Amino acid sequence: MKSNIQKVVIGLDFGSDSVRGVLFRVENGEELKHAAENYERWGRQQYCDPVQRQFRQHPRDHAEAMTRVIRRLLADGSVDPRDVVGIGVDTTGSSPMPVAANAQPLGMFPEFADDPNALCVLWKDHTAVAEAEEINTLCHSGRIPDYTRYVGGIYSSEWFWAKLLHVFRASPKVQAATASWVELCDWIPALLTGVSDAQAIVRSRCAAGHKALWHPEFGGLPGRPFLAGLDERLLTLPYPLYTTAVPSDHSAGRLCPEWADRLGLPVGVVVAVGAFDCHMGAVGAGVTPYTLARVMGTSTCDILIAPDQEVGKRIVHGICGQVPDSALPGYIGFEAGQSSFGDCFAWFRDLLTWNDPSPARRDTLLRDLAEAARLLPPGAHGEAAIDWLNGRRTPDADQRVKAAIMGLQLGSTAPAIYRALLEAVAYGSRAIVDRFEDEGIPVKRIIALGGIPAKSPLLMQISADVLNRPVEVVESTECCARGAAIFAATAAGEYRWAAEAQQAMQSAIQTTYTPDPATAARYRELYQGYQALATFAQGRATPQGS
Amino acid sequence: MKSNIQKVVIGLDFGSDSVRGVLFRVENGEELKHAAENYERWGRQQYCDPVQRQFRQHPRDHAEAMTRVIRRLLADGSVDPRDVVGIGVDTTGSSPMPVAANAQPLGMFPEFADDPNALCVLWKDHTAVAEAEEINTLCHSGRIPDYTRYVGGIYSSEWFWAKLLHVFRASPKVQAATASWVELCDWIPALLTGVSDAQAIVRSRCAAGHKALWHPEFGGLPGRPFLAGLDERLLTLPYPLYTTAVPSDHSAGRLCPEWADRLGLPVGVVVAVGAFDCHMGAVGAGVTPYTLARVMGTSTCDILIAPDQEVGKRIVHGICGQVPDSALPGYIGFEAGQSSFGDCFAWFRDLLTWNDPSPARRDTLLRDLAEAARLLPPGAHGEAAIDWLNGRRTPDADQRVKAAIMGLQLGSTAPAIYRALLEAVAYGSRAIVDRFEDEGIPVKRIIALGGIPAKSPLLMQISADVLNRPVEVVESTECCARGAAIFAATAAGEYRWAAEAQQAMQSAIQTTYTPDPATAARYRELYQGYQALATFAQGRATPQGS
Repeated sequence: MKSNIQKVVIGLDFGSDSVRGVLFRVENGEELKHAAENYERWGRQQYCDPVQRQFRQHPRDHAEAMTRVIRRLLADGSVDPRDVVGIGVDTTGSSPMPVAANAQPLGMFPEFADDPNALCVLWKDHTAVAEAEEINTLCHSGRIPDYTRYVGGIYSSEWFWAKLLHVFRASPKVQAATASWVELCDWIPALLTGVSDAQAIVRSRCAAGHKALWHPEFGGLPGRPFLAGLDERLLTLPYPLYTTAVPSDHSAGRLCPEWADRLGLPVGVVVAVGAFDCHMGAVGAGVTPYTLARVMGTSTCDILIAPDQEVGKRIVHGICGQVPDSALPGYIGFEAGQSSFGDCFAWFRDLLTWNDPSPARRDTLLRDLAEAARLLPPGAHGEAAIDWLNGRRTPDADQRVKAAIMGLQLGSTAPAIYRALLEAVAYGSRAIVDRFEDEGIPVKRIIALGGIPAKSPLLMQISADVLNRPVEVVESTECCARGAAIFAATAAGEYRWAAEAQQAMQSAIQTTYTPDPATAARYRELYQGYQALATFAQGRATPQGS
Repeated sequence: MKSNIQKVVIGLDFGSDSVRGVLFRVENGEELKHAAENYERWGRQQYCDPVQRQFRQHPRDHAEAMTRVIRRLLADGSVDPRDVVGIGVDTTGSSPMPVAANAQPLGMFPEFADDPNALCVLWKDHTAVAEAEEINTLCHSGRIPDYTRYVGGIYSSEWFWAKLLHVFRASPKVQAATASWVELCDWIPALLTGVSDAQAIVRSRCAAGHKALWHPEFGGLPGRPFLAGLDERLLTLPYPLYTTAVPSDHSAGRLCPEWADRLGLPVGVVVAVGAFDCHMGAVGAGVTPYTLARVMGTSTCDILIAPDQEVGKRIVHGICGQVPDSALPGYIGFEAGQSSFGDCFAWFRDLLTWNDPSPARRDTLLRDLAEAARLLPPGAHGEAAIDWLNGRRTPDADQRVKAAIMGLQLGSTAPAIYRALLEAVAYGSRAIVDRFEDEGIPVKRIIALGGIPAKSPLLMQISADVLNRPVEVVESTECCARGAAIFAATAAGEYRWAAEAQQAMQSAIQTTYTPDPATAARYRELYQGYQALATFAQGRATPQGS
């Protein structure tokens, strides 16, 4: 029996390991169908070298997994493909790759099919540390404008230009064949819409602004002196690489016949401009002005939006980026985050299961630890930790800083240390919230999404107590895809603007964790200790005199 | 067939978990038989509360385990009980307990049998932190002589008077029933020799001088103003608690008929005055002037002896004690130590095996960790630790300080942290050696004994590298019992003085670990980091303004 559902949109969320596709009802955001497909080559860790922190993904993985996902969404016939009015795309980022003049990724050509330098450089690839250093040195030299001004003052090895520079130096052959350098979130819409000219690829405002140093004040991307100051090789690319960077409420084009056929969708479905997963996740989760929407996974990505006229010329220091229209058009999108969040607990689990032949213990360890840690008082028995197991993303990005555990005694059990780690990530969150507020951007609401909130109610409660604010956890487990769908619906003209679509289609709040006043007061005291420890740990990581 | 062995002595070594008994040949110190028995109630951790750092032992445990051990030594008939000429006793300490007027520990009476406050307060019990503070405040007030002068200037919560004061305050019932307060090393000889009057218990010079503030310059124990200045309750005890404190080359009496029968030994065997394990261990290991003999177990006790005429009036600050004739008669005995040594590794093993149902993993974990840690470079990948898991004994006793682990990152594996802990205890050792030398007492040789050296060659090598000196490991695994036997042979008149008995009966050196120059140089650098971290950890533990 065919349902009477009318217009639907598809949200495609390209994560680190898989792509998830979700069909949403345009009218009210109801989630109708859901499918996920892993990347095959990535699953074999082809093209990766973890010791060198090299993580590359094959664009064929993305294209193939996307095809399977959409076919699965439509397979049972419960949704009529003719009711699909739009496709929205979010991806990890910065995850750029080289493309040829015909807009095809180099990895699609036989001569580059197995060359890691011709593939997508995944967000967590850290091979470009030296190149990021060069970019920072150049930008802070005074010889050119400081293009890092709107990305917190520090350029990261995880970002667009550093990766481009690294790949060009690593492979002259790739350099020679490269006609442009494109984020995954821009290539997918280009692929679906049949773009066959690299110069015609529509660029995402979100990716451009947060990772490629694009800003209206600079008139777009950094100028020739930036490129020439880094490496002559960058001048072999078209200049400028692109001019316009488009918010995701716009259409990137329409589904081309080839892909319509491949996916089983009608030709002409609107494909929205892409963006990064956390930005779209924040929109799907219902971000409103001065809401900090926290996407909690192995790390966090924290998105806050504020009206342009209120932020004015204010520069928020030590935050990853501030870009007009990047998350929700009409607002400045701020990005912050913690480099290790879920990773802190995964690390502790791995530590405790070192050389442990029992998979069963590993599977239940974090749950068991939480159960025991819940019974301990704030601050346990004096154990205290710093959460910088993967450096610090914000405030004040610094990849050199490291984590610490203090206050250990013979009675310091695994649950006590686990609790200290939970508290440490909550303190790290507080440092971000405080930074926003110290810089004049009030944080009026906190919403949590991603995989962690459902897995760790204890962490959510501790976060509420440490932040001394309610923490609202969203209902939807697919906020990123939902955000992509909201933009698809907007780009398809079903709503007048994205905020209107968001209002209709965003996730509900499932649970609100409210702070306990006495516990919050205790954490206010304990936070002093965290700050002192953080200052000491920072000093340890900083070469003398710097 | 009966052997033709002639005179033998028994060394009894009461450790934290078990008592070990060893039969030695008087002539040459040959080890003939060996037995060990665990404390049963202690094995169930009865009367303990690790979170409160309360560790109490039942005197029945000591008496019962001792009986089993001596019976096992004699069980196979290979040694004729009539050849036993002496029994020497060493114990942990300060491990005092309340006794009734008849010299029986209160724990032996039905009404106190399960009262932790009536039991032996084990050396590592830290419930008396506040009381130690009071003692320090009083001694440093100028109102009375500074009785802490010969114990490094700081009285510890692990010691005699602090524990007495704490127990009296915790239990008026125990206070009312207490006729005296007696170290375990004094009670065992009193038990074996049938003492039935608390006032007649012979007191060990070692225990009295190092823990009870007894010193010839004070004319014995601290005077009434000391007791009255702390708490009127202390005045309910006989005054003075005792006058004479006897070196262990003296006899405490002779084996009484009841215990001769119970143990299967002849009535009248000489029982030497007891002492603390590490002091006797140093003698058994062959301590000579300016040798630091390090007894390495859950904690370390480090003994150094120096001729009285050379030390003169010199006061060594921040060291646990300097007492004439305490270790080897004829010399000043210095005591120092690290509060947690083997305990650091046991703690880490317990952490990693939290909720682990597999006993096999627990049994081999430290060995497996050592195997992996051995392959890591000094300082691993930046991991660094402080070893104060049970406070700091020396230099500068402070039970409030706690341990720490810094420099953690996602790649910080269990072996890397294990290596950091090994290095931390070696740095703690270096701080002690440096302190002796800074105070004008040269450390000319280091010998290692106790359970750890054989178990952890890696730790011995790291110690040699960190100290940049050879570390000599003794052959005998029972140096404490051997030292007790040396004193038994002396007290029984088989030798003219203890040093003569030591020369004949001491352990050989088995292995010498020599420092690698390059590694030692690297550790010299890393030690700066340890000192900075130690200063921070100290500051964290110290209330502002103190």
